[in-house]
Amino acid sequence: MSKITLLIHCKDQPNIIASVTNFIANNKGNIVYIDQHVDREQNIFFMRLECEFDSISFSIENFKNKFSTTLADTFELKWKIYAEKKPKMALFVSKYDHCLYDILGRYNSGELFLEIPFILSNHLDLKPIADSFEIPFYHIPISRNTKAEAEKEQLKLLESHGIDFIVLARYMQIVSGTLIDKYPNKIINIHHSFLPAFVGAKPYHSAFKRGVKIIGSTSHYITEELDAGPIIEQDIAHVSHTHSIKDLIAKGRDLEKIVLSNAIKLHVNRKVMVYNNKTVIFS
Amino acid sequence: MSKITLLIHCKDQPNIIASVTNFIANNKGNIVYIDQHVDREQNIFFMRLECEFDSISFSIENFKNKFSTTLADTFELKWKIYAEKKPKMALFVSKYDHCLYDILGRYNSGELFLEIPFILSNHLDLKPIADSFEIPFYHIPISRNTKAEAEKEQLKLLESHGIDFIVLARYMQIVSGTLIDKYPNKIINIHHSFLPAFVGAKPYHSAFKRGVKIIGSTSHYITEELDAGPIIEQDIAHVSHTHSIKDLIAKGRDLEKIVLSNAIKLHVNRKVMVYNNKTVIFS
Amino acid sequence: MSKITLLIHCKDQPNIIASVTNFIANNKGNIVYIDQHVDREQNIFFMRLECEFDSISFSIENFKNKFSTTLADTFELKWKIYAEKKPKMALFVSKYDHCLYDILGRYNSGELFLEIPFILSNHLDLKPIADSFEIPFYHIPISRNTKAEAEKEQLKLLESHGIDFIVLARYMQIVSGTLIDKYPNKIINIHHSFLPAFVGAKPYHSAFKRGVKIIGSTSHYITEELDAGPIIEQDIAHVSHTHSIKDLIAKGRDLEKIVLSNAIKLHVNRKVMVYNNKTVIFS
Amino acid sequence: MSKITLLIHCKDQPNIIASVTNFIANNKGNIVYIDQHVDREQNIFFMRLECEFDSISFSIENFKNKFSTTLADTFELKWKIYAEKKPKMALFVSKYDHCLYDILGRYNSGELFLEIPFILSNHLDLKPIADSFEIPFYHIPISRNTKAEAEKEQLKLLESHGIDFIVLARYMQIVSGTLIDKYPNKIINIHHSFLPAFVGAKPYHSAFKRGVKIIGSTSHYITEELDAGPIIEQDIAHVSHTHSIKDLIAKGRDLEKIVLSNAIKLHVNRKVMVYNNKTVIFS
Repeated sequence: MSKITLLIHCKDQPNIIASVTNFIANNKGNIVYIDQHVDREQNIFFMRLECEFDSISFSIENFKNKFSTTLADTFELKWKIYAEKKPKMALFVSKYDHCLYDILGRYNSGELFLEIPFILSNHLDLKPIADSFEIPFYHIPISRNTKAEAEKEQLKLLESHGIDFIVLARYMQIVSGTLIDKYPNKIINIHHSFLPAFVGAKPYHSAFKRGVKIIGSTSHYITEELDAGPIIEQDIAHVSHTHSIKDLIAKGRDLEKIVLSNAIKLHVNRKVMVYNNKTVIFS
Repeated sequence: MSKITLLIHCKDQPNIIASVTNFIANNKGNIVYIDQHVDREQNIFFMRLECEFDSISFSIENFKNKFSTTLADTFELKWKIYAEKKPKMALFVSKYDHCLYDILGRYNSGELFLEIPFILSNHLDLKPIADSFEIPFYHIPISRNTKAEAEKEQLKLLESHGIDFIVLARYMQIVSGTLIDKYPNKIINIHHSFLPAFVGAKPYHSAFKRGVKIIGSTSHYITEELDAGPIIEQDIAHVSHTHSIKDLIAKGRDLEKIVLSNAIKLHVNRKVMVYNNKTVIFS
Repeated sequence: MSKITLLIHCKDQPNIIASVTNFIANNKGNIVYIDQHVDREQNIFFMRLECEFDSISFSIENFKNKFSTTLADTFELKWKIYAEKKPKMALFVSKYDHCLYDILGRYNSGELFLEIPFILSNHLDLKPIADSFEIPFYHIPISRNTKAEAEKEQLKLLESHGIDFIVLARYMQIVSGTLIDKYPNKIINIHHSFLPAFVGAKPYHSAFKRGVKIIGSTSHYITEELDAGPIIEQDIAHVSHTHSIKDLIAKGRDLEKIVLSNAIKLHVNRKVMVYNNKTVIFS
Repeated sequence: MSKITLLIHCKDQPNIIASVTNFIANNKGNIVYIDQHVDREQNIFFMRLECEFDSISFSIENFKNKFSTTLADTFELKWKIYAEKKPKMALFVSKYDHCLYDILGRYNSGELFLEIPFILSNHLDLKPIADSFEIPFYHIPISRNTKAEAEKEQLKLLESHGIDFIVLARYMQIVSGTLIDKYPNKIINIHHSFLPAFVGAKPYHSAFKRGVKIIGSTSHYITEELDAGPIIEQDIAHVSHTHSIKDLIAKGRDLEKIVLSNAIKLHVNRKVMVYNNKTVIFS
């Protein structure tokens, strides 16, 4: 069996579900998952389908062509069709190791449907971890003067490895517009606060100062505006006056790991659709 | 516009989604919600649809007939079609008032899509609350000797008011098989523990004795076996050694209210399907 | 037995715990609860004690005098001593009834250790609820021009009833500095967001727009700066793209009720200490 | 400064707090943490103190002697006094690596106040992980016939390394009474369910079958009765009908890691007191 995942969005309009499901049936596909959402405020329709086809007769290119020239044109659909293939993820890290260990542990156990062609860092601290998991590690130092040059090197690496998306696992550097434009809604960041509270640096310090009773963690696609991109996943932990900043940071590490890993899983399983700087997360 | 909700389950088989959506399109319906689930272990397919039809030409009886004789027969579907109409809920209570207040508050605010023809109790304690919300209150006392007789009275009331489903809002009485058979998967109970832990009476006492760090609450459809029916909703609260049994009971009240109200909302919105003593809860 | 609760804070210094506990023992008190906290950043010590004394020989006034002139002076303590007496709470409401029902339901069930001499509103909508619980209801309308006058009336009511603290149960009006100064850290508000995110009006609309995956609720003491006072309690609920603004508001109501009630309980049980615009919440 | 932690429990009685704090002051100690709990049902008093002494003049042995012959005798205290010293933890594992990675990651980052003299397993699968963290790994295979012999070897290892407590990080073997007797309330297990629900093997399978909407994880001290020992920590995750058994297991891994690590931290920080098969967990 060949399996594809189909993501669609368009202006909400009658008969769209029936037309799409009918098209798939006529092309000898069997729908094994369907979910849809309508944003009533914006009048936008979203749909996610998984379909199976007989491997021998099925050509994804033919299917895409037919889909494009018939349905997609009629309903003015924005769409994407994915074959069942592990996407390639680049891991950007700096000095913190907790998210890196967490992701690599899951990767090793087969929990993540993806490949990791390389890990990239502006520091050498985490190279031994990459080594012990036998994943190539590239060290590209960044200083104010070399930033543009360093990003060119990054881009070259990303392209030569055919990277599909990037995960900033506590990367601690601001990524420039050049990279964002090349990977729109494909760079996943973990921010160590419950956004939109505590944007920017040192959120645990700000949370401590404000005396909040809950801390949070947010995974989002990065956009040009700092910590303001579409939110994929959030979670929280309860804290109290007994927690020092150091305690908040330690508690936060557990949040960061799980929230980031969940976001990665949603992304690679094609469960996220982005529009208006928000996300639809299919089940 | 006429709106219907369609619930289907059957053996999993190819083309079922396309066939159903196509059938609706051919009958001039527009699908506004679709979700499905496949239990891969049992090989059962579940689907929930909401469709809109032009009110003038649409007859739900005709639609049901056509659906039954064509699709339903072909795929051997088990199905239900609901018009958009407030179901009638009977509220059974005893002496505790927290769930009653909570439900009536939501009812008054328009949060619940249902009618409450009456409140029934084996005690008179909560009559003033029913009065203040201007809902008829029936008092049917129950003793060991009068139980069968009392249930006959209950059944008469339920039937004469055209009750669709029953909510046991801390009713504290075991409901007999007679009633359960008349209202299969239509009697919603709130059990004050995280089932299957602490079945039966006094779960907070058992939780205290076991020294658990979390208490829970479970809403389920009742079946002949005590506290073993299909679970609709559960939630929990963290507790510690500082909580006495009285504290657990107070904390538990908040859980019970919210879990029961959520279960009622899921039920009246036709989001629950029951099979194998489990539930599928659509989003 | 006479029971008192003693709250202390001061510069952190050696021997303070031993000195206080010793003082109580020497005055024939038995400590039944003790907890303390040190803010290591600010070097401030906090302590909460509950002590029992023989009712016949014990005079709280004598005890206060002795405490003040010996211990309190030596260690430069800031302190409060409370007898076990129900504090008087004024409830300010507007048109939303969910927090009001929730508080009155708990009040009726004996869950809250307090008295409610009156409910005050700028609208008449909730008078029937106050009536059904047999609590006096005062209607003081507020317009831009009459605001100062209205607050004078409010103050007169508060003083004539010997009110100890005020709860704004979705009161929807900004309280002026005059009232805040008279009741410092004694006016509890419920804000319908996870502060500091979404300060001000319409937080659910802002949360919807930002596409957050979690909404929150925050109870805090009001200060002159809007929604920036010391946080007493916070809680959250998970939401998704399927939730409309109306859904967020409905889900939020459950949060608001529980968070506000918890804050009230902490306050009346003297478990909250305020400093530096933050709270210490004893267990 | 020398710091000690003092844990006390005894029959509840007057003046105990003042007497203990006074004793410490008289011995030139400064109390930096105090918390207490009274189980009113059982009439038992619990207290935890942290005290600092001048390192030059302080002898913990002298202090213990004095404490024992004066206070402890008078009040019939059960007590323990701990110097500030990293306890030695033995890690027992089998084939699952997620808890092992999680613990070693925290250990490396300095989050855990303990030493790990060795990791022990009945299989060789996880040896490479132990190697990469440079911790000695002992392989003691276990079969039905060799179990008694294997436990003797284990005991020898534990004793020769001066092990203070044992963590079963998904060890998957039933530990015999011999070992439990040697390490009473010192063997921490992680059970992959919300105890007391789903005792024994394959709890995720049972949870799936029962159709629960929440899964849990429980860390407890092991006792002779299976999965019935004093609970240290529990946490839960929400699940739905969409989760297969495999999904429950994956979600559960995250729970297990965090719950077990939290239990370890509570244990090494001397925050746990056990009585009546329950725990008091100090803040």
